Amino acid sequence: MSDFKRLKLNLVKPVPSDYEISRNQTPKHISEVAAENGITETEIEPYGAYKGKVKLDVIDRLQHRKDGKYILVTGITPTPLGEGKSTTTVGLAQAIGATLGKKAFANVRQPSMGPTFGVKGGAAGGGFSQVIPMDEFNMHITGDIHAVGMANNLLAAALDTRMFHEATQSDKALWKRLCPEKKDGTRDIPIGLLPRIKKLGLDTIDPKEWTEEQVSKFVRLDVDPKTITWKRVLDLNDRSLRGVTINQAPTEKGLTRETGFDITVASEVMAILALSSSLKDMRERLGKMVVASSKAGEPITCEDLGCAGALTAIMKDAIKPNIMQTLEGTPVFVHAGPFANISIGASSVLADKMALKLAGTEPGLSAEEEKEQAGYVITEAGFDFTMGGERFLNIKCRSSGLSPDVIIIVATVRALKVHGGGAEVKAGAPLPLEYTTENVEMLRTGCANLQKHIQNAKEYGVDVIVAINRMSSDSAKEHEVIKEAALAAGATDAIVSNHWEEGGQGAKDLAEGVIKCAHKEYASQKNSGESFHYLYSTEGSSIEEKIESIAKVMYGAGSVEFLPQAQEKIKEYTAQGFSNLPICIAKTQYSLSHDAKLKGVPTGFVFPIRDIKASIGAGYLYALADQIQTIPGLATKCGFMNVEVNDQGEIEGLF
Amino acid sequence: MSDFKRLKLNLVKPVPSDYEISRNQTPKHISEVAAENGITETEIEPYGAYKGKVKLDVIDRLQHRKDGKYILVTGITPTPLGEGKSTTTVGLAQAIGATLGKKAFANVRQPSMGPTFGVKGGAAGGGFSQVIPMDEFNMHITGDIHAVGMANNLLAAALDTRMFHEATQSDKALWKRLCPEKKDGTRDIPIGLLPRIKKLGLDTIDPKEWTEEQVSKFVRLDVDPKTITWKRVLDLNDRSLRGVTINQAPTEKGLTRETGFDITVASEVMAILALSSSLKDMRERLGKMVVASSKAGEPITCEDLGCAGALTAIMKDAIKPNIMQTLEGTPVFVHAGPFANISIGASSVLADKMALKLAGTEPGLSAEEEKEQAGYVITEAGFDFTMGGERFLNIKCRSSGLSPDVIIIVATVRALKVHGGGAEVKAGAPLPLEYTTENVEMLRTGCANLQKHIQNAKEYGVDVIVAINRMSSDSAKEHEVIKEAALAAGATDAIVSNHWEEGGQGAKDLAEGVIKCAHKEYASQKNSGESFHYLYSTEGSSIEEKIESIAKVMYGAGSVEFLPQAQEKIKEYTAQGFSNLPICIAKTQYSLSHDAKLKGVPTGFVFPIRDIKASIGAGYLYALADQIQTIPGLATKCGFMNVEVNDQGEIEGLF
Repeated sequence: MSDFKRLKLNLVKPVPSDYEISRNQTPKHISEVAAENGITETEIEPYGAYKGKVKLDVIDRLQHRKDGKYILVTGITPTPLGEGKSTTTVGLAQAIGATLGKKAFANVRQPSMGPTFGVKGGAAGGGFSQVIPMDEFNMHITGDIHAVGMANNLLAAALDTRMFHEATQSDKALWKRLCPEKKDGTRDIPIGLLPRIKKLGLDTIDPKEWTEEQVSKFVRLDVDPKTITWKRVLDLNDRSLRGVTINQAPTEKGLTRETGFDITVASEVMAILALSSSLKDMRERLGKMVVASSKAGEPITCEDLGCAGALTAIMKDAIKPNIMQTLEGTPVFVHAGPFANISIGASSVLADKMALKLAGTEPGLSAEEEKEQAGYVITEAGFDFTMGGERFLNIKCRSSGLSPDVIIIVATVRALKVHGGGAEVKAGAPLPLEYTTENVEMLRTGCANLQKHIQNAKEYGVDVIVAINRMSSDSAKEHEVIKEAALAAGATDAIVSNHWEEGGQGAKDLAEGVIKCAHKEYASQKNSGESFHYLYSTEGSSIEEKIESIAKVMYGAGSVEFLPQAQEKIKEYTAQGFSNLPICIAKTQYSLSHDAKLKGVPTGFVFPIRDIKASIGAGYLYALADQIQTIPGLATKCGFMNVEVNDQGEIEGLF
Repeated sequence: MSDFKRLKLNLVKPVPSDYEISRNQTPKHISEVAAENGITETEIEPYGAYKGKVKLDVIDRLQHRKDGKYILVTGITPTPLGEGKSTTTVGLAQAIGATLGKKAFANVRQPSMGPTFGVKGGAAGGGFSQVIPMDEFNMHITGDIHAVGMANNLLAAALDTRMFHEATQSDKALWKRLCPEKKDGTRDIPIGLLPRIKKLGLDTIDPKEWTEEQVSKFVRLDVDPKTITWKRVLDLNDRSLRGVTINQAPTEKGLTRETGFDITVASEVMAILALSSSLKDMRERLGKMVVASSKAGEPITCEDLGCAGALTAIMKDAIKPNIMQTLEGTPVFVHAGPFANISIGASSVLADKMALKLAGTEPGLSAEEEKEQAGYVITEAGFDFTMGGERFLNIKCRSSGLSPDVIIIVATVRALKVHGGGAEVKAGAPLPLEYTTENVEMLRTGCANLQKHIQNAKEYGVDVIVAINRMSSDSAKEHEVIKEAALAAGATDAIVSNHWEEGGQGAKDLAEGVIKCAHKEYASQKNSGESFHYLYSTEGSSIEEKIESIAKVMYGAGSVEFLPQAQEKIKEYTAQGFSNLPICIAKTQYSLSHDAKLKGVPTGFVFPIRDIKASIGAGYLYALADQIQTIPGLATKCGFMNVEVNDQGEIEGLF
């Protein structure tokens, strides 16, 4: 990467606000970032000066290359103190790319604007490890979330409108309107309705010959309103929309219905964006999305509504990964952002494939040349290893066919102390003393949580590096304790990193360890004989068995209790032929168990499954261990109140 | 414009579908279009290859220039047959720009995606007079409508959440949460709440000294739920959302409320985007938007909710006009698209100002040089002259300080026959004979409608050219009849144009007439002494007087009846100090009157005003003569059913 232009950091202490740091760095034009990373002029589509979309052609052009190394960043069980996964992802990319001068891509999710204007703050890393410009990163980017929302909501409108028209028209009227008779007596059938004709086996019969029953079957989807799972979405924290009654205008003739809105990133369309491997694959997945059942119990899909082509048209540009850069000018792919709870919480397969080819090596190199030239793709999974990492491996990797070379588990001294029994942390209140002074015993107890995640990761046959995200109040002794515990649990190494304060330079040791691990150069890796495998097989094991293996092996449950609603859904989905899909378990992220109060490493508990839902287009079922809130609310004082645009047109107070 | 590269048209007959024509033309890269039109490399921000945003700096850089000529395209009273206003706007720009080789900008609205997937079809012109690529034009563009929706809905969420928090918390708790006490005893006041402190006159008092009553006044907006006018929006035809009940989830504690959704283009934020003259002006307008009244009857604004800065941040890029191109490579600004019924139905002031400077001339030229070098900005107003044109002049021009040099009224033989008593036209059914064969008498009767629009336009002191949009079934005699009627009513000229079939070449005569008219070279223009003026003054005339002058002078009403709800609102808005704003009257577009059935030129009717609403940020009141549907529905068979993405990734069947 001889022509890489590193952006110099102007390190200052104390570390200024994220926004100040972002604004004080002048990014390279995105065309320059693209060119430096082997993307041709015709493959990059700039969106303004600092963002661009990259055409999928890149993947085809570089198909012959051997992929670069694939690094997955995950964490310990989250605590209110955070552990800095995104910051580590970005800091590590800066270290490998800018400090060590190798190719390095950070692949991250596009943040939802809901939390941006709520309380959470940005998702672009932080301190001197950030994606820039951070305001552009946190708002709109190139409009992909907006496209997801449009696609999701067009399908919702199509469904409700179809139900309205079916309720107010005879079969004959529907037939006449959907497929008007032409002058020559044939029917004008919209292209979007052909798949349903085929599904019903009517494609071999001239429409003139259809019986009344066949016409009825075709024109009347006969949706059972009680079974509708499709909701509308907005990319905002709008609690008022959690539960709504629609169709209340007089024009809707009393056909009211209770439903609700989700936040856009919870849409199945977003999960499809993350998991699709091509435009064609996305088209097929969109068509397969199930929105309800008919009164006869058959799944009603997007394809049945004649909507899949239009949804694909809406998503045509969204499928191209977005490229931005870090504070030090290394490349970042920002693409897709599915909800981390009811979905996979990881960025897109296509961005990963694209980055792995761009970071890849030409065939025919010696092992040494290959190590010298190989690049790195660092990506992140939502929440901890046991939620985000598990889904990344069992759902995303199964869909992509890829597997990571190294799993990083991020931990901090403070967060581990929460798991070791530290006092409750309250927003706004001063931190209890144990978090700001050395407390080796509490930390040692808390390390059990880290160890469980390491052991869980090792179940998949992948090597683990623990990244100790350094804070100024840590002691050297404390770092030593974490390292000892990590190695004892099977980690290949545990390395302190200071990227928040120092950018890539602060993560240099971590970067060197990760590179060494990716090339299997640690002594402990020699002849380990381990290789990647999934936790469970999707075919030939029941829905219950898959859930049990996640709950028992990963979470430490003694047993799983399937509540009546869940049992019913298992029966239904099995009958509909959906039992061979992987499972996403939606539960609290604040404990390895289903109970947020259980810190550390709870074991032997009964893990409840309340309900099961289906994302057939995305390709998984999701099992609910909890009531999951799928659209957040705003606090009394919230993020938007701090935001202003100054006279120079710059955004102030975003974080 | 020596370096303009004309894209050659491959004219074929019969004229293929809009989409085929669009796809068969290879557009220039948008950077090339920008450069050809005097936009510098640092002023253009490409969004993909064929769209770009232009920074507002252009306007400042060219401030010294004399504006180009400003041409407003309007039409006769719409009929189901259409008259081709957008097509004429684009065709005329192609004629002046590509055929005659002068600078010519077409300034058009961004279409809503609701109708795109409904039934209406594209809004990019048609035939050989189009904005390309038409699929990009009709979907997303650079995301401005999405930004408008986000801004609108953040405000809605902020309002409902504030009401929830006020209903469930004491003044003391609200004060503590909104402005937490810092260690030093001072309060941490979010920047977004400062304007309310100022409005209440509390900015000069130390918060520590505030009385309980003052604290209460500050923290409690005390919204009267019955008075809420702010609705949520989606850019879709979703009839189910016309009337909804929100807050029905158990978390919302029974605080349910009836409301509804509008289509995004009906949002006041969209009107503000169209009417703002700078980022700062937009910030102020967003803050002034009134969402409800307090129980004491005071208007509650976006500023009171602490939201205006965040909304401005969301809209920061949307304010930059988007540039695209016509089929012949001439420049098009696509910016803002406010609803044509409850709003102004015109594209943005900023795009017009920018285009007028880019089409402008340097100071110190002779009259001849100026005529030689002057460029033309052709823009459009929704519906007919009497709705769209009236608002364009009384609201948009009043806001911008600009005024048009020529008003074009587009008419077709067919549409005039509808006004002359032609049989009703039904979608799908064959056209009645009178529309496809010569019928001079019917046409002559229908011309009264055209004449009324011409006379209305002349009220403002602007010269009128009638564009006869040619169709193949027209006879020469029929064109002659229209011309005679137009001249008799005071039009400067009436010119046949065939741009749909022939592109710019087909509108060459029209272009020459418009140029001649803009430079006052018609004999009838010499010494006419006319100059531009508004229909009514905003200051010193009451709301009733303004409405009466529009209804009587423009529509031909005998009198205006203000129904009780309207009377009450007039009192309320007058008391709140909003009576000095211009008025937008929302009525059917299918008649000069309030009754869609009255074709031709009805007179003497009683014009009813049912209700009055306020768009204080946008800067007008709107008076409802009708129940206006602010979110359309989808038909049984609708646009989206024809859309597919083919294996080459191209969109099929969009129109």
